[in-house]
Formats: sequence, C-alpha cells, structure tokens
Amino acid sequence: MSQQPVLSPAQLSNIHAWWRAANYLSVGQIYLMDNPLLREPLQPEHIKPRLLGHWGTTPGLNFIYAHLNRAIMARDLDMIYIMGPGHGGPAAVGSAWLEGTYSETYPDISWDGAGMRRLFHQFSFPGGIPSHVAPETPGSIHEGGELGYALSHAYGAAFDNPDLTVAAIIGDGEAETGPLAASWHSNKFVDPRRDGAVLPILHLNGYKIANPTVLARISHAELDGLLRGYGHTPYYVEGSDPEQMHQDFARVLDTCLDEIRDIQSRARTEGETERPLWPMIVLRSPKGWTGPADVDGVKVEGTWRAHQVPFSGARENAGHREILEKWLRSYRPEELFDDDGVPVPAIRGLHPAGSRRMSANPHANGGILLRDLQMPDFQDYAVSIGSPGTGAVESTRVLGTFLRDVMTGNMKSFRVFAPDENNSNRLDNVLEATDRAWNANVIPGDDHLARDGRVMEILSEHTCQGWLEGYLLSGRHGFFSCYEAFIHVVDSMFNQHAKWLSTTNDIPWRRPVASLNYLLTSHVWRQDHNGFSHQDPGFIDHAVNKKADVIRVYLPPDANTLLSVADHCLRSRQYVNIIVAGKQPQLQYLDMESAIQHCIKGVGIWEWASSDAGQEPDVVMGCAGDVPTMETLAAVEILQHHFPDLRIRVVNVVDLMRLQDQGSHPHGLSSVEFDAVFTQDKPVIFAYHGYPWLIHRLTYRHTNHNNFHVRGYKEEGTTTTPFDMCVMNQIDRFNLAIDVIDRVPRLRDVSSHVREELKDKLIQHHQYIRRAGEDLPEVRNWQWTGGS
Amino acid sequence: MSQQPVLSPAQLSNIHAWWRAANYLSVGQIYLMDNPLLREPLQPEHIKPRLLGHWGTTPGLNFIYAHLNRAIMARDLDMIYIMGPGHGGPAAVGSAWLEGTYSETYPDISWDGAGMRRLFHQFSFPGGIPSHVAPETPGSIHEGGELGYALSHAYGAAFDNPDLTVAAIIGDGEAETGPLAASWHSNKFVDPRRDGAVLPILHLNGYKIANPTVLARISHAELDGLLRGYGHTPYYVEGSDPEQMHQDFARVLDTCLDEIRDIQSRARTEGETERPLWPMIVLRSPKGWTGPADVDGVKVEGTWRAHQVPFSGARENAGHREILEKWLRSYRPEELFDDDGVPVPAIRGLHPAGSRRMSANPHANGGILLRDLQMPDFQDYAVSIGSPGTGAVESTRVLGTFLRDVMTGNMKSFRVFAPDENNSNRLDNVLEATDRAWNANVIPGDDHLARDGRVMEILSEHTCQGWLEGYLLSGRHGFFSCYEAFIHVVDSMFNQHAKWLSTTNDIPWRRPVASLNYLLTSHVWRQDHNGFSHQDPGFIDHAVNKKADVIRVYLPPDANTLLSVADHCLRSRQYVNIIVAGKQPQLQYLDMESAIQHCIKGVGIWEWASSDAGQEPDVVMGCAGDVPTMETLAAVEILQHHFPDLRIRVVNVVDLMRLQDQGSHPHGLSSVEFDAVFTQDKPVIFAYHGYPWLIHRLTYRHTNHNNFHVRGYKEEGTTTTPFDMCVMNQIDRFNLAIDVIDRVPRLRDVSSHVREELKDKLIQHHQYIRRAGEDLPEVRNWQWTGGS
Repeated sequence: MSQQPVLSPAQLSNIHAWWRAANYLSVGQIYLMDNPLLREPLQPEHIKPRLLGHWGTTPGLNFIYAHLNRAIMARDLDMIYIMGPGHGGPAAVGSAWLEGTYSETYPDISWDGAGMRRLFHQFSFPGGIPSHVAPETPGSIHEGGELGYALSHAYGAAFDNPDLTVAAIIGDGEAETGPLAASWHSNKFVDPRRDGAVLPILHLNGYKIANPTVLARISHAELDGLLRGYGHTPYYVEGSDPEQMHQDFARVLDTCLDEIRDIQSRARTEGETERPLWPMIVLRSPKGWTGPADVDGVKVEGTWRAHQVPFSGARENAGHREILEKWLRSYRPEELFDDDGVPVPAIRGLHPAGSRRMSANPHANGGILLRDLQMPDFQDYAVSIGSPGTGAVESTRVLGTFLRDVMTGNMKSFRVFAPDENNSNRLDNVLEATDRAWNANVIPGDDHLARDGRVMEILSEHTCQGWLEGYLLSGRHGFFSCYEAFIHVVDSMFNQHAKWLSTTNDIPWRRPVASLNYLLTSHVWRQDHNGFSHQDPGFIDHAVNKKADVIRVYLPPDANTLLSVADHCLRSRQYVNIIVAGKQPQLQYLDMESAIQHCIKGVGIWEWASSDAGQEPDVVMGCAGDVPTMETLAAVEILQHHFPDLRIRVVNVVDLMRLQDQGSHPHGLSSVEFDAVFTQDKPVIFAYHGYPWLIHRLTYRHTNHNNFHVRGYKEEGTTTTPFDMCVMNQIDRFNLAIDVIDRVPRLRDVSSHVREELKDKLIQHHQYIRRAGEDLPEVRNWQWTGGS
Repeated sequence: MSQQPVLSPAQLSNIHAWWRAANYLSVGQIYLMDNPLLREPLQPEHIKPRLLGHWGTTPGLNFIYAHLNRAIMARDLDMIYIMGPGHGGPAAVGSAWLEGTYSETYPDISWDGAGMRRLFHQFSFPGGIPSHVAPETPGSIHEGGELGYALSHAYGAAFDNPDLTVAAIIGDGEAETGPLAASWHSNKFVDPRRDGAVLPILHLNGYKIANPTVLARISHAELDGLLRGYGHTPYYVEGSDPEQMHQDFARVLDTCLDEIRDIQSRARTEGETERPLWPMIVLRSPKGWTGPADVDGVKVEGTWRAHQVPFSGARENAGHREILEKWLRSYRPEELFDDDGVPVPAIRGLHPAGSRRMSANPHANGGILLRDLQMPDFQDYAVSIGSPGTGAVESTRVLGTFLRDVMTGNMKSFRVFAPDENNSNRLDNVLEATDRAWNANVIPGDDHLARDGRVMEILSEHTCQGWLEGYLLSGRHGFFSCYEAFIHVVDSMFNQHAKWLSTTNDIPWRRPVASLNYLLTSHVWRQDHNGFSHQDPGFIDHAVNKKADVIRVYLPPDANTLLSVADHCLRSRQYVNIIVAGKQPQLQYLDMESAIQHCIKGVGIWEWASSDAGQEPDVVMGCAGDVPTMETLAAVEILQHHFPDLRIRVVNVVDLMRLQDQGSHPHGLSSVEFDAVFTQDKPVIFAYHGYPWLIHRLTYRHTNHNNFHVRGYKEEGTTTTPFDMCVMNQIDRFNLAIDVIDRVPRLRDVSSHVREELKDKLIQHHQYIRRAGEDLPEVRNWQWTGGS
C-alpha cells in the first residue's frame, strides 16, 4: 500500500515507542527476575530458573493495543480489549503497567524500576500471576487459557452498551475452534441502535503450537469470501516492516471506527433498518515479531518456534544469554524509561486517562456497574394448590410469567438465552415482554423477531454461554434455559467461568457479578420423543467438582418452589446456579407460603405426606427432583395402603448442597441438623433425579450415610413412556416400595406377598404400555390422596 | 432455472414415486399404529395415542435419498448417507424398508403390509425404536439426537476409503453449532488420491424448533461467499415445485459427482497437487414439504410449526383425523404398494442391489470391515530400569516410538489425532513414520506437512473427535491425544459415542468396532506454565457415569506400564479407553516383565516399596497416577526413616475400574481380592490423580471403604512449581506422611515431633520456591533409595 501516511512523524514515533516499551516489558516478564532496566550487563542470576510464558502472539497484541490507545484518545472512545490469544498475558499485564493501572491496582508493583522488577519477577512465578490473561489482569473479562470464546464474550459485553466498542482479537489458532467459528454470526443479533459495537481483529500470525493455521493458509479470495460471508467488511494489514505496518494499521483502524460510527449514526438518527456489514480487521504479521530471527541456526521469528519461550537455557548458556540481552536492548529501554524506571512522557502521552484506559475500563470489572434487578414479587405468580400432590401444571411456564415481568422491569440489563429452546422450555410468556433478537432477514409469518429483542436464541450452546458470560462479567444479569443433556456441550466453558468466579473471590478489586443462572429442563425423565441421546443428568456431577463457594444446585419439585428458587438465584452474586425442573404438566405440592419456607430450609420433612407423626420413623424416604418426588409419594401411598402402621418420613430436598456437611459446602447441614432429618440409623430410600452415586458423595461424611439406598438414573433409557423410564431405572413407585420392604427389618420377612403383588404390577405395566403405547391410566392420572 | 431436463419422464415418475412412498412411510411411522395401507377409512384406533416424532426435515431427507439412489445405480457408487438432521429418523427407517434392508435386518418387520404395520407401530413406541437416526437404524454411523457432528463424521468415514463417497446432509439448524461450523475446514485435510469424497448437502429448510435459521436468512452473496470461503464450489437447488426440483437436483447432483470424479482423477492419474474446490449442494426447500399447508387456519408447511408432529389430537379430533387421512392419501399409496403391501416394481427398480444400498453399505457397520492392527511387540520399546523409582523419562515420548511403528504397520487403517498437541504431548516420533495431514498452502520451513499425512491436527477438539468417531465407526483404528483439561470440550460428543457403543452391544447385527482411545496428558499436576485454567482431571468422573461395559480408565505410572496399557487398548473393541499419563520427565518403576504383570492385575502390591513383609500392614498407601505414585513413595521413604518398624503396604492402581466391586464393573475386584490388597480394617491413605471423591464412589461397596482417606485434586491451583501444586492440594509427600501419622493409632499419639518436623518442611519449601522460583533440590531431584 502506498497511501498517504495518517500518522505524523511524531505520532509514528510515539506509537512505535509504546510498542517497543510494551514488547520490552513482555520479554522482561518472560525472562527476567532482576536487573529490569538493564542498567548492568545481564547476569545468569537476573534470569528466571524456569522460563514459562508465550512470546509468539504477544508483540501483535502489543501493536494493536498501542493503536487502539491512539484511537481512544483521538475519539474519546469507551473501549475494552478482549485478547482471544490470552496466552499473550505479558501484553495485557505490560500494557496495564504502562498505563499506570497496574500500579494503582497492585500498589506493590509500583510505576518505577522497583515496580518493574517485581512486575517481571511475579510473572509465571510461584506466588505470582498466571502467564495467561486471567482474572488477576486489570481490564480483562476473558480468561485466555481456553480458546474459542473471544467473540462471544465480546458480543456479550457489547449488548445493551450503546457507547461501548469492544476490540476482539481472534488468534488464527482460536479461529479453528468450533465455538469461535460459530460465534462469527453473532452480528445477526446486534441492534446498532441499542447495542455497542464489536470490532473483530483476526490476527493471522500463521502458526499454532506446532502447526500452521488454516486461515493463514487459504487463498486471499477464500478468506475474503469467508469473512464477507460472516457478514463483515474486512480490511487487511499485512507485512512486517514496523513503519509501514503502523501507518497501515492506523489508517485501517480509522476507517473501521468511522464505519462503526456511521453505522450507528444511520441506525440511531436516520432510522436505517438494514443489517449493516460491520467492519473488521485482518492483521497478518510474523509470529514472535521483533524477537530473535534465528537461534542456534534455526529460524524462530515467523515460525511456530516463537510460540512459547523462543529459546531456553538463558541462565546457563552464555550464547543464549547474549541473544536475550541483545534482544532486550534492541528495544532501547534507555529511551523508554527514565532514570527511575518510569515510562517517559512520550509514552505516558499515548494512553488515555482514568477509566478510558482499557486496563481501567469499568465494563471489564462489571461488578462496579452492576445494579440490582428491579424484581416483581415472585409470590404474585403463585400457583394455587388445592391439595398437595394434585393438579397438572407446567412449572416452567409459570416461571415464564415471572421472567416476563423481570424482563419488563429491566429492559436494559437483563436478557434470557436459549439454544432455540425458549418456547420448547415453556418460557414463551417472556415473548409478551420482548421479542427474540434478530437482525437477519425477516419474512411474513415469523414469530416475535425484532432487532431489539432480548430473548437470545441461536442453535449454539457455546454462543449462548459466551454471550451470557460476557454480559454478566460486564455487569448485567441473565438466565440461560437449556435441555439438560446438552448443557454438557458447554462443560468446558462452565469450567472456565466457575474458575474465574473462584479466583475473583480472592481478588478484592474485582467486584461481585451477577450469578450465571441455568435452568436445565427437558430433563432425563421426560424425553418422551427424543430418547437415549437426550438423557444425561450429569451436569450436576460435573459442576460440583468445582469449588463449593461458587456452585449452587436446586431441584424444585413444583412451580411455587421453582419461583422461590428462581427469585433467589436472580438476586444472588458470584455463583453458578443450576436449577433443574421439568417442563411437562406435573403435580403441585406446596402453596407459596410453604414453598418459601421449604426453599429457605433447602431440605425438609413433608409432614403432610409422612406417617411418623413426630416419632422416630421406620424408614426415611428422601427425594430430590420433580419426577422422583412424585414416585416417592406414590410409593408412600402404596406402602400406607399395605402397612397402615408403618412410620414413613418423607424428606424433600430442594437445595442439593444441603446434603453435604458444613465443612464441604457453605450450605451443608450440621451433623445435628442432618441427623434430625435423616436419623442416625434408619434406612433411607432416596430417589434422586440424577446419577445415584452423587447422593452418596454428598452425604458421605454424615453419620447415617451407610444406610442410604439411592435410586437414580443409571443410563437405562430409550424412547418410551414417562413411567417406563422410571421402571427401567428402578426409581418408580413399585420399586421404591419394594426397596422399603427389603430394608425395614419388620417388613422384610413378613411381606413377601406384597412384594409379589408389586412385582406383578410392574409386569402389568410393562404389558400394557407395549400394547397401548401409553402408561396405565392409574399411573398416568395418579394424584396424591393423602395415603388413604 | 430453465435448463434441459436431465430426467426422462419415466425417471422423473419413478423418482417421484419413491419420494411419495418414502414420505408416506414417514407419515405412517409418526401417526399410525394400524391400517398401514389405508385399505379402510382411518379410525381413531389406527392412530397412536402419543404422537412423537419430527416431520419437518423428513421429506427433504427422503428427496435427497431418492436422488442419491439414482446416482448410485447410474454410476455404481459406493456411498453412505450421514443424516445430520437425524431427528428425521422416519426417513432413514422408511428408506431402509423400501430397499428391503430393514426386513433383512429385522425379519419381523417384513417387506409387506404386515411388516409395514409393524414398521409404523414400532416407531417412537415403547419397546420399539427411537425417533432419531440411531444405532438401530441400518446404514447409519451417526446418532441424530445431538447436532453438530455430521460433517466431521463424514470426513472420518471418507479418510482412507478412496472409493467411498459420503453424502453429508447438514441441517441449517445444525449449521449454527460450533462443532459443525469448525468442521467445514475438514476439506484441508483430505487427500484426493488416498481419501474418499465428502459431498456436503446444506439443507436450508429455513426453521429450527421455533426460530428461523441464520444461514437461510442471509443474502445469497453472503451465503455464497461463506461456502466458497470454506473451500467449496456451491450449487443451488431452490424451490418447492416437485417436478422442477427433481430436475434441478438431478442436474446438480450429476454435476457434483462429475466434479468429484474429475478431482479424483486429476489427483490420482494426472498428478495434480493443488487443493481442489470440492463441490457441494445447497437445497432450499420448505420445512414439512408436501405436508398439510394449513391446520386450523394456521400455516404449517414452510414454517417452524412443521418441525415435529404438524398437528396433534388426530385420534380425538375428527377434523384432524380427516387432515391426516387426506395427507396420507395425497401420496396415492395404492399406486406405490401392491396388494400385499410390497413396493411396486417401479420403486423396487430405483434402489441399488445388495451392499450398494446405502442402508446396507458395510462402511456403515464398520465392524464388518474391521481388521486387527498389525502390531509391533510393545515389549521391544521397553525402558530399562536400573532400580525402581529412579531415572527421568518422558513416558509419552516412549509411547510415541511404539505408535510410530503401529503407524508403519497400518498405513491404511490407523491414524492419530490431536488438537495441535501431537508434539507438545511428546508423540513427535510418530512423525518419523508419517506426516501431518495438510492440504492447505505450504511454505518453506513448514514441518512434516503432507497431503497424505496420517497425523490429524486441527485446533478443534470437536473436529478431532468427530473425525475419529467417523473413522472408527467405519471400521478403522485410532488414537486421540489431548490435554487433560480440554477433553471436556468434547464431553457431550463422548456421551453420544459411549451411548452408541452401549446400544450396539445389544444389537447383534452391529459388529464390534475398535475402541476409542484417549491419551490425556499435559495433566493437572504438570501445568507449570498454564496454571489454573488448564487444571481439570474430571473427564474420568464424567466418563464413569456411562455404562460400565464400555468405559475403561488407566493410570499407568511409568513408561513400561503405559506401553502395556496402550497395547491392550489398541487391540480392544467397543470401549472408550481413557489413559492418563504425564509427558514430563518422570521416575520409572517397573521393568517390562513386572509392568505386564502389574497391568494384567490392574491393581497390585508393590512389595519392593512396602515394609509389611507379608504381614498385616499398619497402613496401606494406595496410589493411582504418576505424580501421586511418586509422592506416595517419597512419603514411604520419609515414614520409614522416622518409623523403621512401621509396616507400610504400597498399592498401585493402573486399572481404575478394578476398585469397583464386581457387580458394578466387569473389571471390579471381588470382595476377597479387594480385602486381600486393602485389608478389611486398616487405614488406607490413597493418593489419586483426580478429584478424590471418585475413589470413594468406586470403593463404596467394599468392606474397608470407611477407612479410605483420599487425597487428590481439590481445585487448588495456579502457575507454580510441580511440587507446590501437590502441596496446594495436600497430596505431597509431607502431607501424605502426616496423614499416615494421624491415622495409624500407634503413631498418632507419640509422633507429634515428627509431625512438626514435616510441617516445617512444608514451610521451608514454601519459602524456597517463592524465593528461587523452583522446587527445593531435594524434592526436584528426589529418587527412591529403597526407603533406607
């Protein structure tokens, strides 16, 4: 390109100085533990014994940062920076230090030579900071360890932030991942009037750990077609000569920011309704740019060998140490930092002030901006209960009416997310308050689509999750409904978010953010037409491997408990709340007053269904989950019919973490409390929604643990009737009643005829459903009649 | 389009008849349980009481099937059919029945009216078949319940099958998922000389469950750019008029198959080396095509309302029953099936014979084609052991030499897969036998890239997993190495594959396929420079929720046990084998003879490290995993130093499933065996690689379970030294020794000074690593010295 330079010589010099400074700080972080300003010749003891970090992507990230800073200052932009290639942690940390934010956030890492020494020392050092962009990094909402989520995080942050621009750097490695590939289409869900802008910057540095990248190795025509196919207007900056690259990038960045401004202005003031083609940048630059070209006769710069630490043994190998010193001095640190090690004025003049600094932008510490939701009173949505264990209500539909009004009260700070399942999950009522976000083509007959919709639906759990994470971490609220089995699609994303929350709990300057709320429905027991592939209740197991201080799991058995739980979750902070509840018509148990009390306790004796009348029971029948609760009550009725004097205690668990001990989870019951409910020595027949062993794990430290007999899902399933699913997994009423007979000593030996009768019932059932294709009427229409 | 018709009137009539027949069979499956040929007026009792299935995508799948059949016959193609929109199960089942395969596979579903009745009855009916394409469906290697994997499965099947063409139907819903979006670039990993062809058919029917689809609602220019950007030449067939659509699709299909033939011929006979632009088809047709246009005044055909059952209540509602009958009769069944219900000759003449039928193609029942690997003797790769617990060997690098020679012996039926981690995982030696598959651009300096490479690397765990599944299910062998934490990215794909294996174990005509072998390395204990985001050993927990008959988990502590385990896994069938082993230099324990014996037993007493000398021990120290094994031995050494007469038994576990009881897992130990190793009443200090509670779950039914004290990963981590990671999680040698002191009664009260000394050691360590940045030399260089 030979266009007019956009940067004056002074601007060019300053930007280049910033870049040199940032690169110097990056190399220093990776290699040095002392002599940060190279005021003396480099000695072995100045170099870290273990060299751990990633250089390859870092100079590119620094380059972009410098240019964004110029633009922020020139245009007074409100901008945050998502570093998809988060392995380039030194770039984020170094830039934050150059801007002064790092020292404001961590005063011991002062803005001088002593601070620089500590900045270098701490990086990837025991007791220090991670080598990736991490919660510890000011200015970030994006953990850089796992790849794939840069764009969806960026869009999540941009939603409902009309004045925000999110620069999202996508590495060409990350671009190969599924989640990233899917998230390009996020631009069909942006409303240019209401939402901010995302500026994707695809950074083609050509290599991953050991391989070239796909997008760097296809023709320009293919790449251009692909990016235009994603709905963008791409601008290319390609090369390695710093001066030319600075001019080209500055020009292209100005063009993109102009286009964004024009798009927003057309939509906001001229009423333009066509989906715009948002600009984006492709930056093709060498991996490990400005690093050593060759080491030991092997090419490093511009190859995969620059990915991590470009050469090792700098402590022991004098030759390598010399390369390192030469490399560091190539940035001319003496021109960049004054005698005290403070960045010189030319550099200090390149960063914006205060919260305009990307490293200090409050959107990247969303808790600062977080406001409580305006909440309707959930009790207003209560389902009236005639008698417990009757009725037929789709509990999630009731929840939908509540969420509708949460939406109405929070039209700038609350969204619901679902992978094309909002209505399937019976949350349609939300569409009375808002539409589905949609900025692709619309045709007659389309249902509730609008540019400014707040129901976010794309058939990608990854994209939904990424949007929601970005939305939460930038200080807003959300709710994700998903088929239970397929939430496993985002297991690994959940891991990273849970780890982020755990880590931020120990970082005082990170303010609490709203919890990530999952509603898992279309659950394992009611996959009537989808069958085995849709049956997996294991997300709870996966989640509870994470730190107890961030994980909450609720299994409300009916609509009123679901309302109470949802209200609690939406008000909470810093958790991942998992709510499991069915969407099919189901029995209702508790009026609102009782539901609230039950949810506060989390686990409670249902006296109306029990026959122990305050005495020590013969058996405890525990249940957690809507279907297990129904089967437990039906079993109680059977048992009471056959054994009127059997003392049964029914215990329902809403808050699963209550089953743990206090040492294992903050919600855990004390041993006194636990024993008061589950006894110290009576048999407990526990019907659990998910894989049964989890109940053993949770109750493991409690006295009566060895008497727990747990039924749950044991991977038996197919397309069949709801009751047959229970039978296949032996969690049905007849099997539960048999379990009681087998475990209560005074029944065990005298009740063989009842046992046989129950077995016969199972056979009758089996024959009937295979003939009729549905459950026996007495099962299908069963309601609790008080055990009489 | 007004081009010359390619189908003669007779061909057109026959194809249309096939399509009508297939559609008729599809509607019949969804709605009917009797009166299959409509020989009498439709009565309520002919209709299923529960209507469960998906109509929307089905007519499109039937349409494509009919046309592929014509092409197969005209060209004698070897072709299989991957139905991405697997919810259209009726299409796959109906087509298989039309071809006669279904009746050959399931003789009770005969090829006549009686069989048709049972075909209809069984669909989505208790005791019948799932509504999705499933293992039960002849001709499929693709479970249709979870979306995203159609293309990667298709490519997996095409690799090393030069004469195979895989038609891969991608629904526009599925196209929004991350895994599918990533897998388009699979064409950069195809060698047109050696591999078969994938013909992607993107089916735009416009809607998902309740929303329009993104790809159906972008401009033609954007869609075309996107598909060309993926590296394809797209051909479009758009409309709804059957006659025109038949002619257009036939023409386009011929064009595509001609192009595929030309591409292969140029590569195979003319030496063309440029990556070809593979053809693909875009079929835009109405959702629920040929179904009822309106029901109750609401538009159905061409909208999301056609997604599942287009209207319900056909039993109870006479009006709906009438719509159903009219709909069924619109296909004119009397012209399609003869008096006995057998398809008429015109239809029978449209399908190919024998194994050319897509429903009978052996590639879709890969076990038929599977041949044992030619295996080198793994003992030839043994690491020689001076004395146990010494040395420093990268165990996975040793494995790489073995895999290299497995590769050499099986250059048409074995591949290794990794998300850009093959070399990072120390399997570089495989590159001595083959290269990385790469058919994108190559530049000087690239390392081991070749069109015909057999190391499959793309930075997408999803694509790697999908390729491997397709490769295995079509009858070949493979090996997937992955960072331990990020295998969670494919949790949900693993679920579906494990469920497929479980299901096929009960389907006699499905022949066993090679196991899916994972090597999980770069594991939680050695994430020295990646830290917390890369630490998650929970994939094992996730996996063991699946049926025990398909899950195997191995934790070989050194190179020789790793070799033995890998050899075993590569020879096995129908399992998911999970091998967890570190890649860092580590101590070696067992010579090959001992390693083999140890792996056969799966769990064994290491007498050389024990001091119980055949007597009842004071304490059992169990360990599973390389790092826990080392720490356990180091703890033994400490304890023996302080308490020379303490009787310690060291038990190492290689085969984790051995810890279960026999009732829970086929590898489970009997209670006699378990007690003989772990005693009935002695304290067991168990150091486990992963989350500790799993050991409690596995050992739960064994007598001594309550005396197990398990240490493992408890989500404490950051970027730090290897030993500090252990300390953070209290699985280090000092904490393990303290655990012993605290639990052996005769030590507990007399050893407070030793306890203090060990605590001091921990403090010393802490101070040293925070100063020096590395572990204490005595820890870093520790080797077993016989406990003296």
